[in-house]
Amino acid sequence: MDSNILNNLQLTKVAVSKIDTFDFENVKFGAKFTDHMLTCAYKNGEWGALEIKPYAPITLDPSARVFHYGQAIFEGMKAYKQDNNDIWLFRPDENFHRFNKSAIRLAMPTIDETRFIGGLKELIKVEKEWVRKGLGNSLYIRPFMIATESGVIASPSSEFLFCILLSPAKSYYSGKIKVQIADYYSRAANGGIGAAKAAGNYSAQFYPTKLAQEAGYNQVIWTDSTHTHLEESGTMNVFFRINDTLYTAPTSDRILDGVTRKSLIALAEHLGYQVKIEPVKVEAIIQAAKEGSLKEIFGAGTAAVVNQIEGFAYKDDYYELPNIADEDAYALQLKNALTKLQNKLTDDPFNWTVKI
Amino acid sequence: MDSNILNNLQLTKVAVSKIDTFDFENVKFGAKFTDHMLTCAYKNGEWGALEIKPYAPITLDPSARVFHYGQAIFEGMKAYKQDNNDIWLFRPDENFHRFNKSAIRLAMPTIDETRFIGGLKELIKVEKEWVRKGLGNSLYIRPFMIATESGVIASPSSEFLFCILLSPAKSYYSGKIKVQIADYYSRAANGGIGAAKAAGNYSAQFYPTKLAQEAGYNQVIWTDSTHTHLEESGTMNVFFRINDTLYTAPTSDRILDGVTRKSLIALAEHLGYQVKIEPVKVEAIIQAAKEGSLKEIFGAGTAAVVNQIEGFAYKDDYYELPNIADEDAYALQLKNALTKLQNKLTDDPFNWTVKI
Ligand SMILES: Cc1ncc(COP(=O)(O)O)c(C=O)c1O
Ligand SMILES: Cc1ncc(COP(=O)(O)O)c(C=O)c1O
Repeated sequence: MDSNILNNLQLTKVAVSKIDTFDFENVKFGAKFTDHMLTCAYKNGEWGALEIKPYAPITLDPSARVFHYGQAIFEGMKAYKQDNNDIWLFRPDENFHRFNKSAIRLAMPTIDETRFIGGLKELIKVEKEWVRKGLGNSLYIRPFMIATESGVIASPSSEFLFCILLSPAKSYYSGKIKVQIADYYSRAANGGIGAAKAAGNYSAQFYPTKLAQEAGYNQVIWTDSTHTHLEESGTMNVFFRINDTLYTAPTSDRILDGVTRKSLIALAEHLGYQVKIEPVKVEAIIQAAKEGSLKEIFGAGTAAVVNQIEGFAYKDDYYELPNIADEDAYALQLKNALTKLQNKLTDDPFNWTVKI
Repeated sequence: MDSNILNNLQLTKVAVSKIDTFDFENVKFGAKFTDHMLTCAYKNGEWGALEIKPYAPITLDPSARVFHYGQAIFEGMKAYKQDNNDIWLFRPDENFHRFNKSAIRLAMPTIDETRFIGGLKELIKVEKEWVRKGLGNSLYIRPFMIATESGVIASPSSEFLFCILLSPAKSYYSGKIKVQIADYYSRAANGGIGAAKAAGNYSAQFYPTKLAQEAGYNQVIWTDSTHTHLEESGTMNVFFRINDTLYTAPTSDRILDGVTRKSLIALAEHLGYQVKIEPVKVEAIIQAAKEGSLKEIFGAGTAAVVNQIEGFAYKDDYYELPNIADEDAYALQLKNALTKLQNKLTDDPFNWTVKI
């Protein structure tokens, strides 16, 4: 960490916090934000000073590159407050490195650890009252970077804005979801930007997801370019349990290298489950569903942590998964182990949690 | 056209035009804009009133969907001024329909012809002094739509802004370009958004294009998911001339259905050239280059109209195209025929030009 950068951080506080009017009991994910945000501008080949200032609109030229060429990336992570008021981040180095990996793929500048992680810590210190105690409460963190240079020229911007927003989050039981396996649409190309947390990847999914929802499913599970292998869901990696083995696809240039995915793999192995990281054939999953050896499918991502799947559609058929008791569900065992670790309610043998 | 919508257009003029300080001789493509822009907001399931107002920044919440999920599309078209001061659009119906096709694929609302084409005509009437006469001069038109709803929730926005910017353009001889054939990176997936003029498609190309430029090439020619077929370039469709036959790939869900491409196909047939629309194998083009039957490759798009290619790299080899006399080059014959038609210097047997 470069202490100069942090010493030069410009802090402007709101006159009156809006925290007293915030309903922490009824929180809609990602809808409302805390009093302040962190910003940092990139210009003339370098990042400028960090600023923490009142949450406020961004003003850009209508020809700004982000509006026309989608040069925009983001991250998603969470902070948790322990009963003793300590606040913890979960594997922030992973998000920091992935952010820079996304930046490179989108021809955007990388950012230093001091501005990303150091800046985030300063922001959370200012907003510490917004992080609530208790299992299920967290602060969702949204770092993002957008191309701000004006001019409708299809080439990389030379000016960017880095920004971090904070949004209080509450876990809620959303129920099991039904998914549809993609057999025509795709979210990512071979040699494309699927492994980057690039803005454009998400809008690409909206229309096919809408079609799936109109057909009665909550989400799409994306497949590879030949639609024969299962890859990931909209904002989650996916795990398949056949008998007592957990399968998940290896990451590639099409698949986001999820922090929850890699943490669950480590936790599952720690708990003694067998985990296999290998390509997952659509055919094999259908076969297992027919034979009854397919016990569980679940998604894994920062927002929902783990999302159990109750059944999947493929072409004209729907396959329902068995109703497994909660205490036998790998999905829930892993979710429980991970959220307790994140909330400092158990040991952290992996050293994943970082104190602010 | 719905005359009510046009009658309710709100026009706010600039106090002082900046046209006198604009250097029409030294124009950088897409860098500077006229005095006014057209805007229209979508909210509660419907488009609002058209507004023509001074060109000005856009202010959005930092959590606006366009910044995080890339829900943004655009179009590119041109207007030309005849010697008698009439101003003409070129096939605006094509851009209008493609815009709505892009909108559907990105889960954005379609827009009516009155707001898109009618609104554009009103804007150009206000800005008519900015359209300059003379072959080579044009007004570049940039309609675009962005998702403006706030909230970092990966789902379609329910609020949007439609906007049209105008930028004076001048054709200049950029020279022939060298291209690299993609053998690893891709711009679009099977079942992806390549056929949409979606913002995210462009940022996906920046990094591989930068690598190509560092290796000494101007542009990448993208290939299909197996990297065996030639598809299109960054902002141009591509034509290949083998002996006296022109080949170009059929459009698909990976390839933008270019207006210049389809116009050149029609013009080429009109001029008696043989044109074949069929998948173009990388192997076949290399074979033709080796045999000497590959006479020309050129890109076709609104910005440059036609861009001649002098050679291409594939993996470790570079293939130079023969030096063809200007008067024998299909690329230049077609460019000449098309730009004359667009500028009303010849007949328009296709009825492509539309008077404002
Ligand atoms: C496409 C995609 N896959 C997977 C994930 C899960 O990643 P993580 O566990 O790091 O949140 C995300 C995260 O939001 C995502 O956007
Ligand atoms: C990806 C892509 N291909 C081809 C083209 C050419 O299309 P048009 O001739 O309509 O300008 C464009 C246009 O800018 C484009 O962005």
